[in-house]
Amino acid sequence: MKALYFDQKLSLRDLPKPAPRPGEALIRVSSAGICNTDLEITRGYMGFRGVLGHEFAGRVEACEDSSWIGRRVVGEINLPCGQCEFCRAGLGNHCPDRAVLGISNKDGAFAEYLTLPVRNLHALPDSVEDLQAVFVEPLAAALEILEQVPVKKFKQCVVLGDGKLGQLIARVLKPHCQNLRVVGKHESKLALLQAAGIETRSLVALTARLPAPEDKPDLVIEATGSPSGLSLAFQLIRPRGTIVLKSTFHGQADLNLTPVVVDEVTLIGSRCGPFTKAIDLLASGQLDLQPLISRVMPLEQGPEAMKKAREKDTLKIILQG
Amino acid sequence: MKALYFDQKLSLRDLPKPAPRPGEALIRVSSAGICNTDLEITRGYMGFRGVLGHEFAGRVEACEDSSWIGRRVVGEINLPCGQCEFCRAGLGNHCPDRAVLGISNKDGAFAEYLTLPVRNLHALPDSVEDLQAVFVEPLAAALEILEQVPVKKFKQCVVLGDGKLGQLIARVLKPHCQNLRVVGKHESKLALLQAAGIETRSLVALTARLPAPEDKPDLVIEATGSPSGLSLAFQLIRPRGTIVLKSTFHGQADLNLTPVVVDEVTLIGSRCGPFTKAIDLLASGQLDLQPLISRVMPLEQGPEAMKKAREKDTLKIILQG
Repeated sequence: MKALYFDQKLSLRDLPKPAPRPGEALIRVSSAGICNTDLEITRGYMGFRGVLGHEFAGRVEACEDSSWIGRRVVGEINLPCGQCEFCRAGLGNHCPDRAVLGISNKDGAFAEYLTLPVRNLHALPDSVEDLQAVFVEPLAAALEILEQVPVKKFKQCVVLGDGKLGQLIARVLKPHCQNLRVVGKHESKLALLQAAGIETRSLVALTARLPAPEDKPDLVIEATGSPSGLSLAFQLIRPRGTIVLKSTFHGQADLNLTPVVVDEVTLIGSRCGPFTKAIDLLASGQLDLQPLISRVMPLEQGPEAMKKAREKDTLKIILQG
Repeated sequence: MKALYFDQKLSLRDLPKPAPRPGEALIRVSSAGICNTDLEITRGYMGFRGVLGHEFAGRVEACEDSSWIGRRVVGEINLPCGQCEFCRAGLGNHCPDRAVLGISNKDGAFAEYLTLPVRNLHALPDSVEDLQAVFVEPLAAALEILEQVPVKKFKQCVVLGDGKLGQLIARVLKPHCQNLRVVGKHESKLALLQAAGIETRSLVALTARLPAPEDKPDLVIEATGSPSGLSLAFQLIRPRGTIVLKSTFHGQADLNLTPVVVDEVTLIGSRCGPFTKAIDLLASGQLDLQPLISRVMPLEQGPEAMKKAREKDTLKIILQG
């Protein structure tokens, strides 16, 4: 099968179709989304070698439990050991021995086929098309903020970043926030948010004149994918405010955490979220994610698609096998 | 009056006795403690110039409200504007225009006299001697952790740092924690903790063999006063755990916050705390802080005392005017 493989460099390879292990299903990938994490991996993040990709929709082709065969599915990306204390406590996403689809010790979704344990699968309702279903994983990550933070109680929420994740987070949080604003540097991306009824502010205008202390937001969601986003979050946040960290990136950042102490700020790291809620939200039709798809490209053009995904005006690139 | 003054370098100066402003009391300082923040200021922290010192006990000599005259007092160190939104919300400690005793725009306690607004003062009960009362400010800072974090619910708490602040934090948290351990690198300081019935671990032993994931603490209090303490906190913390940041220091640290995101860790900055509770705790006689006093020195030996405070086996140095 064709697969987009990373091993210090990125290439399209012809690999054997993966063989499902006990408890795993074989899934024919129909669509897979390129995430910033995929781009960071090609910069060295996680030291991963293998087939990239963890956002996908597909159809089960083979499975011990025949009731799954032929069903359209998405899949959770963490493969916990199932034995350790974390797994027993229902925190399999934090299992220290877990593999992660397309990120750590498990070949991913930029391929014609992938395998996943049946317990990771979620069946898709007919109303959620594959191109929308590709967003289930990042949408769940956005929804995780609602699981961790009582957003309603904050007076002013700022999402830093108008990229793929920032766009999803803003759309997810909007109905729950008293006030929400997205700060970004791409006019076209800010325009998409405005079209969805979300207030925006240009990064340039913001940094040229930081808000007075009483106008500072008490909730900042950092979703820029860059260390400078974090520094800005520290400058923006109101004393006693909360910063949610969503960006993962390769490498160190030069940071001074003393303001966090002096201003008694809370930082909350936030990662994977509830797939079921993400699927329900898509099925409800409340979110139109079509505008976030910049291009649908064939898997064969994977290396080119990854290059395209790095361009500044691009949002989601979807690969189809 | 004699005062220990910092203006790029430290010197004992003869300054005019300060004149209380409206609403302020004139206080004769009897004892004042040297804090790590004082040492950090001499390294450039806060860019402060003036009389150092913010931990003190003294007696009111002059005050518009004559009922205060002659009373033994300690004083809160933040001087908020009283007008802004933060002040109106009862968050004067976070007033953006505040001065801070011996730290920002307000001469401090390493002097024969200081002035403070009467609203900052707390009368001392007779049972709390001046040498203990000097600990009220840092003890309140330690107690602030109990205000911010439900420590009881955590299974394993580790305090990083066996210095002045770590010692106080461990003593304050001990009765509230399921399990508490202090990690430090000074045998003599760890011995003091053991004498107080607190479990300890040497930093060298810990870093030589970091705990297995299931043995990691779910609450880490960072009180080392150094950037390396923070990196260690990140290595130690259990996924979904909480790190409380108590250290302030001058300068940047090279940090990678990605593990905070991946492990969904919560970081909580924590600074000044409730004076009343600290005084009550001292008055209760439950804490014996005498062992934390390394030396009592005359104010005239201020520069030497600051030098002494930097030595690795020193805990609290108290200046007496």
